[in-house]
Amino acid sequence: MFIPRKILEDKLLQFLHEDVGQGDVTTAAVVPEELTVEAVVVAKDSGVIAGIEEASVLAEALGLEGETYVLDGTEVKKGETLLKLCGNAQTILVAERTLLNLLSRMSGIATKTRRIVQQLQGRKATSIVAATRKSAPGLLYFDKKAVIVGGGDPHRLHLDDMVLIKDNHIVLAGDVASAIKKAKAGTSFTKKVEVEVTKSADAVAAAKAGADIVMLDNFNPAQARQAVSALKRAGLRDKVILEASGGISEETLLDYASTGIDVLSLGELTHSVKAFNVSLEIIRVL
Amino acid sequence: MFIPRKILEDKLLQFLHEDVGQGDVTTAAVVPEELTVEAVVVAKDSGVIAGIEEASVLAEALGLEGETYVLDGTEVKKGETLLKLCGNAQTILVAERTLLNLLSRMSGIATKTRRIVQQLQGRKATSIVAATRKSAPGLLYFDKKAVIVGGGDPHRLHLDDMVLIKDNHIVLAGDVASAIKKAKAGTSFTKKVEVEVTKSADAVAAAKAGADIVMLDNFNPAQARQAVSALKRAGLRDKVILEASGGISEETLLDYASTGIDVLSLGELTHSVKAFNVSLEIIRVL
Amino acid sequence: MFIPRKILEDKLLQFLHEDVGQGDVTTAAVVPEELTVEAVVVAKDSGVIAGIEEASVLAEALGLEGETYVLDGTEVKKGETLLKLCGNAQTILVAERTLLNLLSRMSGIATKTRRIVQQLQGRKATSIVAATRKSAPGLLYFDKKAVIVGGGDPHRLHLDDMVLIKDNHIVLAGDVASAIKKAKAGTSFTKKVEVEVTKSADAVAAAKAGADIVMLDNFNPAQARQAVSALKRAGLRDKVILEASGGISEETLLDYASTGIDVLSLGELTHSVKAFNVSLEIIRVL
Amino acid sequence: MFIPRKILEDKLLQFLHEDVGQGDVTTAAVVPEELTVEAVVVAKDSGVIAGIEEASVLAEALGLEGETYVLDGTEVKKGETLLKLCGNAQTILVAERTLLNLLSRMSGIATKTRRIVQQLQGRKATSIVAATRKSAPGLLYFDKKAVIVGGGDPHRLHLDDMVLIKDNHIVLAGDVASAIKKAKAGTSFTKKVEVEVTKSADAVAAAKAGADIVMLDNFNPAQARQAVSALKRAGLRDKVILEASGGISEETLLDYASTGIDVLSLGELTHSVKAFNVSLEIIRVL
Amino acid sequence: MFIPRKILEDKLLQFLHEDVGQGDVTTAAVVPEELTVEAVVVAKDSGVIAGIEEASVLAEALGLEGETYVLDGTEVKKGETLLKLCGNAQTILVAERTLLNLLSRMSGIATKTRRIVQQLQGRKATSIVAATRKSAPGLLYFDKKAVIVGGGDPHRLHLDDMVLIKDNHIVLAGDVASAIKKAKAGTSFTKKVEVEVTKSADAVAAAKAGADIVMLDNFNPAQARQAVSALKRAGLRDKVILEASGGISEETLLDYASTGIDVLSLGELTHSVKAFNVSLEIIRVL
Amino acid sequence: MFIPRKILEDKLLQFLHEDVGQGDVTTAAVVPEELTVEAVVVAKDSGVIAGIEEASVLAEALGLEGETYVLDGTEVKKGETLLKLCGNAQTILVAERTLLNLLSRMSGIATKTRRIVQQLQGRKATSIVAATRKSAPGLLYFDKKAVIVGGGDPHRLHLDDMVLIKDNHIVLAGDVASAIKKAKAGTSFTKKVEVEVTKSADAVAAAKAGADIVMLDNFNPAQARQAVSALKRAGLRDKVILEASGGISEETLLDYASTGIDVLSLGELTHSVKAFNVSLEIIRVL
Repeated sequence: MFIPRKILEDKLLQFLHEDVGQGDVTTAAVVPEELTVEAVVVAKDSGVIAGIEEASVLAEALGLEGETYVLDGTEVKKGETLLKLCGNAQTILVAERTLLNLLSRMSGIATKTRRIVQQLQGRKATSIVAATRKSAPGLLYFDKKAVIVGGGDPHRLHLDDMVLIKDNHIVLAGDVASAIKKAKAGTSFTKKVEVEVTKSADAVAAAKAGADIVMLDNFNPAQARQAVSALKRAGLRDKVILEASGGISEETLLDYASTGIDVLSLGELTHSVKAFNVSLEIIRVL
Repeated sequence: MFIPRKILEDKLLQFLHEDVGQGDVTTAAVVPEELTVEAVVVAKDSGVIAGIEEASVLAEALGLEGETYVLDGTEVKKGETLLKLCGNAQTILVAERTLLNLLSRMSGIATKTRRIVQQLQGRKATSIVAATRKSAPGLLYFDKKAVIVGGGDPHRLHLDDMVLIKDNHIVLAGDVASAIKKAKAGTSFTKKVEVEVTKSADAVAAAKAGADIVMLDNFNPAQARQAVSALKRAGLRDKVILEASGGISEETLLDYASTGIDVLSLGELTHSVKAFNVSLEIIRVL
Repeated sequence: MFIPRKILEDKLLQFLHEDVGQGDVTTAAVVPEELTVEAVVVAKDSGVIAGIEEASVLAEALGLEGETYVLDGTEVKKGETLLKLCGNAQTILVAERTLLNLLSRMSGIATKTRRIVQQLQGRKATSIVAATRKSAPGLLYFDKKAVIVGGGDPHRLHLDDMVLIKDNHIVLAGDVASAIKKAKAGTSFTKKVEVEVTKSADAVAAAKAGADIVMLDNFNPAQARQAVSALKRAGLRDKVILEASGGISEETLLDYASTGIDVLSLGELTHSVKAFNVSLEIIRVL
Repeated sequence: MFIPRKILEDKLLQFLHEDVGQGDVTTAAVVPEELTVEAVVVAKDSGVIAGIEEASVLAEALGLEGETYVLDGTEVKKGETLLKLCGNAQTILVAERTLLNLLSRMSGIATKTRRIVQQLQGRKATSIVAATRKSAPGLLYFDKKAVIVGGGDPHRLHLDDMVLIKDNHIVLAGDVASAIKKAKAGTSFTKKVEVEVTKSADAVAAAKAGADIVMLDNFNPAQARQAVSALKRAGLRDKVILEASGGISEETLLDYASTGIDVLSLGELTHSVKAFNVSLEIIRVL
Repeated sequence: MFIPRKILEDKLLQFLHEDVGQGDVTTAAVVPEELTVEAVVVAKDSGVIAGIEEASVLAEALGLEGETYVLDGTEVKKGETLLKLCGNAQTILVAERTLLNLLSRMSGIATKTRRIVQQLQGRKATSIVAATRKSAPGLLYFDKKAVIVGGGDPHRLHLDDMVLIKDNHIVLAGDVASAIKKAKAGTSFTKKVEVEVTKSADAVAAAKAGADIVMLDNFNPAQARQAVSALKRAGLRDKVILEASGGISEETLLDYASTGIDVLSLGELTHSVKAFNVSLEIIRVL
Repeated sequence: MFIPRKILEDKLLQFLHEDVGQGDVTTAAVVPEELTVEAVVVAKDSGVIAGIEEASVLAEALGLEGETYVLDGTEVKKGETLLKLCGNAQTILVAERTLLNLLSRMSGIATKTRRIVQQLQGRKATSIVAATRKSAPGLLYFDKKAVIVGGGDPHRLHLDDMVLIKDNHIVLAGDVASAIKKAKAGTSFTKKVEVEVTKSADAVAAAKAGADIVMLDNFNPAQARQAVSALKRAGLRDKVILEASGGISEETLLDYASTGIDVLSLGELTHSVKAFNVSLEIIRVL
């Protein structure tokens, strides 16, 4: 997900614009216009940082000099300095909250994703940890990027990049097999076709019908194990990527991983983010 | 925070646009073009609903008929139907995730806010529960509105609507009293002036200097109590609204409330949202 | 009202874009492409300059070097040079009218505001001179800023930053007191509440009901004096800021000021602007 | 200048958006959500109305019913009702100021333009009254349209629709004749070429060089008369449209008209607008 | 590629806005304001129509009634009526060119695509005909949709929906195999990986390395045949989709198809469009 | 058609944004982040280059260094290097297709325009070659500019810059003469008035009624010659510019030119563009 800096800049300035409204009345009244200061952004939690690129692109777009002390993906301890900003004091203060809010959300996502990925790695599990489209509206790009920084898979980026046939689609298409048939006939050869199934038999039907990815929706670990067996019996296990989704949490993760599922996807990576605490402090007037 | 429907519509369509990209390839391939269906949005958690207005404005902007079963602010039980949508099947499916993501975030915020507000009311505490600007970038309006729906106070909406002098401002302005003096001289008479202080003496100095609101920053309950006493001794308690911020959680809330602080503000209302689970199901082909 | 330069730049470029259309056909045909010139912006009137920041931000956004000879707020005499621009001749000529139009409007507003403020100061009157929301559509930020540069108070910036209950609101809310009660219950503690009244008795009622600011709407000076007395008799004069609005002009200003009203607001500061004449001249080919 | 309603709508909603910010806090707190009311927009001055189309397009875009009592261009007396609005009370109140501000500016422009046009017609003068590009930034369309409604000529709409060679262009092109030569060679045959001259000899040179329109810049009436004679002597008077610009006011207008100049253009039509007073009153709760 | 009507509407209105500028001066002067007319859009060529949906969405967005006589994908003869519009005459005339330009381009693309597809079908060839990203800037959505309407495959929609490793990427990644390895490690499991190769050996290497699709870049039919054989010999033919690109035209198409290549992609489908002639005629004043 | 670089930049970045979507997944996975490379854009056809300014403005907006080897309007041979880019490898690759697509379209237009212009010049014909508004939606500016670069006349830029009365307008206005009368009365003196006629008699009527330009619509060369004679007989040939439009192609061009028509306009210059082949190659890692 490489995006040119200039386009990223525009997205970030829109966020800032929303927060500024008609102008920052506090800074205008309290802070001298021509003051140059140095400020640092400091971690108030321990975890994995994401959003450093965004923070420095925003800072530089505003004419500030940014020096980064960590890269996106770095694990930091509470108290570490992440970024130093140098420039006009009013500008730093007006951008502070927008910059911190994004850094805080993205690092929260990356920290949780990494923790889950490492849990699996600790057990030598090879399942991929993936996000879903359950993101905050308007923040798809940033939420997905934070998942990647944390070591997860972003899954589908939006509605145009793969076919994902869900329960409601199947209801309207008739059954799993006809839905897949329609999808393959009606979509570009450049797309993978994934289908969500609710029982083992449908997983087998989906693989037979040529799905590239089969998503076991709300299967418990035992049911998932059955589905894997059914596919193996049918000689179709290698034909598909198996994904489990729904009800997977940090507690149940290892149980799911042990079933041999290829991908474990968790909506909570992006829909229930715990903010990573960061703060900005002015440390020097130049 | 009344916003004309047409302007709200534009914000919601921008969210949808981001998710659609170049078009929904699944729906195009799998769902017939001219199908009319009925779908319901159902609560999968119990709590307070927010975002129903947004959901129905988005639906109607897309040419769907929406019938709401609950109002924003209604407490619902898991399983209750919130909204019925009727219209073109492809349109419903393309909007599903954007609609649910917003409803889920806003209801998550409202549910938590209401729980905290009720905790205080249960103890007859009169403190106001307030949000901060620690919101998701781009979602200020929606996050603040969800707090209001939950019974909380949105606090400042963005940087232009009140003066809020924080630690970094004070560093640059000299001290609390001169910061307030500058703020009052340099801002419209239409704005309230709030100042963040880190010790009791400064709370008194701020009240003397004419602050409308004094925020006790990271005071523990005991320190907050001392600040209240100091202000009373100086005969200034009635001159200011007292707000506590920093480190307040559901656990410590009642301790803070018992100190007689007027406003308790919690960043976590908007920075660490737990999604409220909702789903959309097609129930009938018309 | 501090706004980051980059966001200001975007607003200014939008104005330019509107004027350019599909391109400046005159400059393209008549002026050589690679010519570098020096141009000056000169005052053709005497008065107070506002918009110099905007002019130089626009110029620099377009790759021109700008050297300012005056600051926003400086009083200049007819004939003084305000700004020197150096750079590509086609670019200077394409931006000329947009730059001058804004400078001319903002300086017109600042000049009138300053004249009124000085009239009051000449009589030792302490009333604040304030603007209203009667601005040109799309120019709220620039009109308000010009008022500030002239020494006036911008008043409310838009509809979200304070409560201002006007005649139509009162009609729908019942009476002054219930409108204020609803406002205080239904709005954040961070907002001031102002109410517009049409008779002395309502001014007293408003102060009793807890309004922060009471606006005497279309009171003549004698009526305003009565309202002040009525509030004093009720012991409420110190509880509220008193504002007079409607029918105040440069002629009647001092009469109003003599009544002890705190704020005098004049729609004509922004709704009937007399342009301050400025022109741009190319003085040297480099 | 016909513009499709839908595009006009977007421009008007942008103005409203700027004024609304994060939402109207007054209306939200004080006015019941589901109230339907009737309101009228009333003239508080006498003059020519412009902006009625804009007002009703904005109203209808917001879901209000609008009934117009006058057309753009109608002369009204103080006290006349211009427009009746019917619909949601909150929506009417949130749009009130944006709607009135535009109507007030446009009617102010139309009123002045009509007065000047009628002054000429009263003396049987046939000169056209024209505007300039000295408009408020962002309001070119609305300012020009108001001039047309008043009976004036909008002149150039922006930089792409005709060639207008001004003093600074001539400085860079060498002289009047070479500037015109370059313009004719370097521009589409679909454009007229106008040139600004500062002395009679240049008016003749311009006509010889093939200019379609010659603008006498800051000529007094006597000098203008000389220029007309010089052109006649050279047999070129019929080859060009003659325009006078600079220093023309309501006082000197007839003197200029008597010289036989075809077009009189006045910057003050749009750069120094006197607002036409209008107000909105809720008259009935339905 | 299903896109909600409301989002399509916005794209179309932007096109119209560009063409309208400050307003249609011809229509405003020549056509009465309140005239209702009926107009038809007629084919002036024979071929496959695409853009009918766009035309009617634009028309209805502008308040016109549209009645379509053909669907997207219909083959028409010169002279057939495609669409009837009914509504305000000025509105129809202002939209005429934008509507026709899009219909003309999209039908041009669809007509050529269909002709090529039918050429293959005539010979029982099963190769898919695909487009490339060589589209007109800003028209990706419309160009791709026209290809689909014509019976072709849109291929990649933009840069985010699949991995396509081209010559320049391989230069920087080292070789085909390492590029694929990096792609598979660094991209979501939801994406297919395609790689462009310039010789048979690399086609085999690519298939071995796990590419989903192998693009033979500028292979002539004989070379393509060799590549197919090489893959067969290596037992890898069934593992990959084979695409040929570069130098394929209507003349050489069948030669390529006879090699057994799965996909034939042609840049000229969208980069060198021959307009399909359509015109709009007003047929009745109502 | 001079447009400030900054405004051009915004248009180009919008095109890029459309192509990037949520990010370039290939480049992100395959190309190292911090790599600096040199790339060249090379002509793969012979012809006239247009779009070099656009290419270098886009490149520089993205932080790349661009060195141009040719100017817009230069005739190049297949194989010539047009532009060298130096900078971040990922950035170059993400912009490659947008940059080439625009260059390719614009050079295609310029090449064809120049060929036609030179055909006329070879025969000493003085007719102007002009474009129409039959352009790709959203690309008016770029298509018109490419025509100019090729030596043609852009004709009307959009709907606001001249009056062009077409068949449908005449139907609604009554006849040619009344349409022109309405146009002259209802439009600014700054606009030329052109009218489309379908028979000689109307050409004469149009010239009599004061049209500046008369367009012979779908006249064959013989009919065009008759129209010229009719105008001469009526002594009106010198009063109007004569344009022929409809059915003019490279084959019939010289026949039309020989009739003495002033302007020959061809829709195919912009509606049926043959792409000029260009490619980008990375030549060096720095």
